[in-house]
Amino acid sequence: MTRPIRITIWNENWHETKQPEIRAVYPEGIHGAIANGIAAEDFQIRTATFFDPEFGLTDEVLAETDVLFWWGHVVHKEIPDELVTRVQKRVLDGMGLVVLHSGHHSKLFARLMGTSCNLSWREHEGGERERVWVIDPAHPIAQGLPESIVVPQSEMYGEPFDIPQPDHLVFVSWVEGGEVFRSGCCYHRGRGRIFYFSPGHESFPIYFMPEIHRVLSNAARWCASPHEDGTRMVNRHRPVPLETIRSDEGSP
Amino acid sequence: MTRPIRITIWNENWHETKQPEIRAVYPEGIHGAIANGIAAEDFQIRTATFFDPEFGLTDEVLAETDVLFWWGHVVHKEIPDELVTRVQKRVLDGMGLVVLHSGHHSKLFARLMGTSCNLSWREHEGGERERVWVIDPAHPIAQGLPESIVVPQSEMYGEPFDIPQPDHLVFVSWVEGGEVFRSGCCYHRGRGRIFYFSPGHESFPIYFMPEIHRVLSNAARWCASPHEDGTRMVNRHRPVPLETIRSDEGSP
Amino acid sequence: MTRPIRITIWNENWHETKQPEIRAVYPEGIHGAIANGIAAEDFQIRTATFFDPEFGLTDEVLAETDVLFWWGHVVHKEIPDELVTRVQKRVLDGMGLVVLHSGHHSKLFARLMGTSCNLSWREHEGGERERVWVIDPAHPIAQGLPESIVVPQSEMYGEPFDIPQPDHLVFVSWVEGGEVFRSGCCYHRGRGRIFYFSPGHESFPIYFMPEIHRVLSNAARWCASPHEDGTRMVNRHRPVPLETIRSDEGSP
Amino acid sequence: MTRPIRITIWNENWHETKQPEIRAVYPEGIHGAIANGIAAEDFQIRTATFFDPEFGLTDEVLAETDVLFWWGHVVHKEIPDELVTRVQKRVLDGMGLVVLHSGHHSKLFARLMGTSCNLSWREHEGGERERVWVIDPAHPIAQGLPESIVVPQSEMYGEPFDIPQPDHLVFVSWVEGGEVFRSGCCYHRGRGRIFYFSPGHESFPIYFMPEIHRVLSNAARWCASPHEDGTRMVNRHRPVPLETIRSDEGSP
Repeated sequence: MTRPIRITIWNENWHETKQPEIRAVYPEGIHGAIANGIAAEDFQIRTATFFDPEFGLTDEVLAETDVLFWWGHVVHKEIPDELVTRVQKRVLDGMGLVVLHSGHHSKLFARLMGTSCNLSWREHEGGERERVWVIDPAHPIAQGLPESIVVPQSEMYGEPFDIPQPDHLVFVSWVEGGEVFRSGCCYHRGRGRIFYFSPGHESFPIYFMPEIHRVLSNAARWCASPHEDGTRMVNRHRPVPLETIRSDEGSP
Repeated sequence: MTRPIRITIWNENWHETKQPEIRAVYPEGIHGAIANGIAAEDFQIRTATFFDPEFGLTDEVLAETDVLFWWGHVVHKEIPDELVTRVQKRVLDGMGLVVLHSGHHSKLFARLMGTSCNLSWREHEGGERERVWVIDPAHPIAQGLPESIVVPQSEMYGEPFDIPQPDHLVFVSWVEGGEVFRSGCCYHRGRGRIFYFSPGHESFPIYFMPEIHRVLSNAARWCASPHEDGTRMVNRHRPVPLETIRSDEGSP
Repeated sequence: MTRPIRITIWNENWHETKQPEIRAVYPEGIHGAIANGIAAEDFQIRTATFFDPEFGLTDEVLAETDVLFWWGHVVHKEIPDELVTRVQKRVLDGMGLVVLHSGHHSKLFARLMGTSCNLSWREHEGGERERVWVIDPAHPIAQGLPESIVVPQSEMYGEPFDIPQPDHLVFVSWVEGGEVFRSGCCYHRGRGRIFYFSPGHESFPIYFMPEIHRVLSNAARWCASPHEDGTRMVNRHRPVPLETIRSDEGSP
Repeated sequence: MTRPIRITIWNENWHETKQPEIRAVYPEGIHGAIANGIAAEDFQIRTATFFDPEFGLTDEVLAETDVLFWWGHVVHKEIPDELVTRVQKRVLDGMGLVVLHSGHHSKLFARLMGTSCNLSWREHEGGERERVWVIDPAHPIAQGLPESIVVPQSEMYGEPFDIPQPDHLVFVSWVEGGEVFRSGCCYHRGRGRIFYFSPGHESFPIYFMPEIHRVLSNAARWCASPHEDGTRMVNRHRPVPLETIRSDEGSP
């Protein structure tokens, strides 16, 4: 792409709005921390939250979004099905999607995966250490990363994680308390690319870590549709057999 | 499994009920043709249709079903979302699912795939020849089959087919008019196994072909959950770090 | 299969032969421990070692083997290429293969993977704890297992592991020292099924653990070719276009 | 990449050298036709053939190659194993590889796949029509292509094709005589990307077709390593547990 990648960072922003102790961690919201953290010349970033009119995700916004980030936790059920359908459709038509942390239980992610997306989890007051290992160092999302990222305080997410087998598995996490988790998973759905990344609990300043910024920047670039030629994966009636028209016309 | 595999063949049965010319092809319905065709000692088969009370798919029936076949076309939209949710849940909990032909556009299949499942298609009065090639001859669903199955009259289904990349691709079809199609696709979702098989238009006696019976029998055996240990992929709170309890108790 | 699954457990048996302290751990060799541990009515088991004539792997033995286990470490380079070629060919023709622990660097596994199979490792005198997590509880190889297996003393194997992305990932391990590892990986190559399983260092009595026996039994049953119809994936000259002969002859 | 992608097109060049009727089709060799066809500002192209000293593939050439094209047919067996080993190693270290047509039976491709790469084939004097269908229109290798490419005269390659399941399947071909073939297959091996593309028989002017040039240009860009950070997937001894050193040093 020669024009900037247009990124919309959606965050429910509930914890930051309702809970002072979370606002203390993320004064500008998780969306703000990410927006500041991944700012780059080739990115054109806007943010949107649960509290914005139409959740900040009008048709116009979606049409102008190349990659959507999604952080949600408490208000999953309050997202209207109609909105979920519109966003899913945009993904299938080529918009990239980066689903973060507890977004694994968002309607949107479940809709695109087809599974429960259940997992095991544990929340400690001080969290526990998580090591995010790079499983596939050649993957574009691993570019510029060390062999593992240590998140000092993290909420445990553990297997089994009820997702379709990822098209590419980029990260697997080790957790201090004894679990493992497929923490970075790539999918292709329709013409869209999807990346799920698990670290990012609201209580811990994970979205201020430069290595996490690098993961998210890489993910945005990878998810941005590599080519847009107007094709959509539509249902197509093809009433005339190709072979009956081939001789004069070459490639259809 | 030592007990028989309990199969429920669901067919909307609309064409056979409303259109005499289709009833002439399938006097006992598509479900009847399949039930007769795959009858075997290790199968315990029942059928259900759109016109049955509760569509023939009560909780009790689903609970007693190891593998569900699904043929639908005209009434996809009239299947209640609630039923789709119940069936999806059963699949994720381990019930096998065989989706047939135009079932690609059923709510159920779309729900499990997360994509539009769009494709290209062509219906001719006399149909056209389709060769269903075995791509993976070692797959259990290919057992006992020739290298390709010739369906003399078929409705064309063609690529691009908007599905997630199959976990295993077993069949790819050649169509007389010039198209190809991934006609036999395996998926794992939750604890369930799913097989999509495209040949089977209502106008043509495809479900009377012995080779097609063989595909469907093999598919039923493959989709039947290989082990049932009561585990479900639930969301699990694990409040105590495993590593703090390890020493005395061994494996958790 | 109605006849027993014919299993050949190959072990280089070098450590047990040359090092008394290892022989103390495995008095009957690693092959003996596995053979005793997985003994079952539907298995017909023999063993073979590096020190046997022709390494115990004559054409006759291979022809009578449904599933081959492979444990090697020190003498990888002394296995003749010719033997590797013969075993690879048998796998491609449908023999199952279970590669254990340091067998990741055997010529045979590297040949079938096409990659270096490099990894990171650490050997401690007392080993360190490894938790083998079941990632895919519905997979036949996970049947009857708890959600994780705790190996009290293990040699660390860690990522990145230079293998092709597994067709199915069944186990991922957590290691006390801070690493993760894809410890149970399934592949299909030709008509054969391959399972790699990493726990099993010679210094530790891992192959005496009932849960490990269960993994290996399950693996043997999964790897055993599901059907043998005489087909091989040969190079096939097909001089006559199928479409020119179709009308009279039906399916070719 | 900001510097040009350095492409080396290797062609055995046997047919063009020994057979006047083939030289008539490809006066500059298949390598010349491809080099001319894909010429672009971001490509720096050189060619090499079987008849060059050291086959044109010295360590220096390989070290300066980002993407290697490989066309071979008659002299597969005369390529020294040592050279195959060197090229394989470069691929695992991140060099891209585009394997063309009968290169499916090259030592190099077999080495990287681990399978026989057998297929079925048919050669006609006039060839037969092949339609190369785009299965995954969002894949970078499909950029700018129509929904199918019609190759008027082609040698038939048909299934079953004994390859590992592709990481991504981009093209599937329809052949006039009744076969199908997975004609465009992507793999990741080590840090390298591999693309196999089947159309391209020496008797037919396929490598002069603009749509084929587009496929090959796209493939070169996709195969070019997306980032080079000096990491190699080496065997790594990690003698000290990470967790024992974590507190002072942060990420290792």
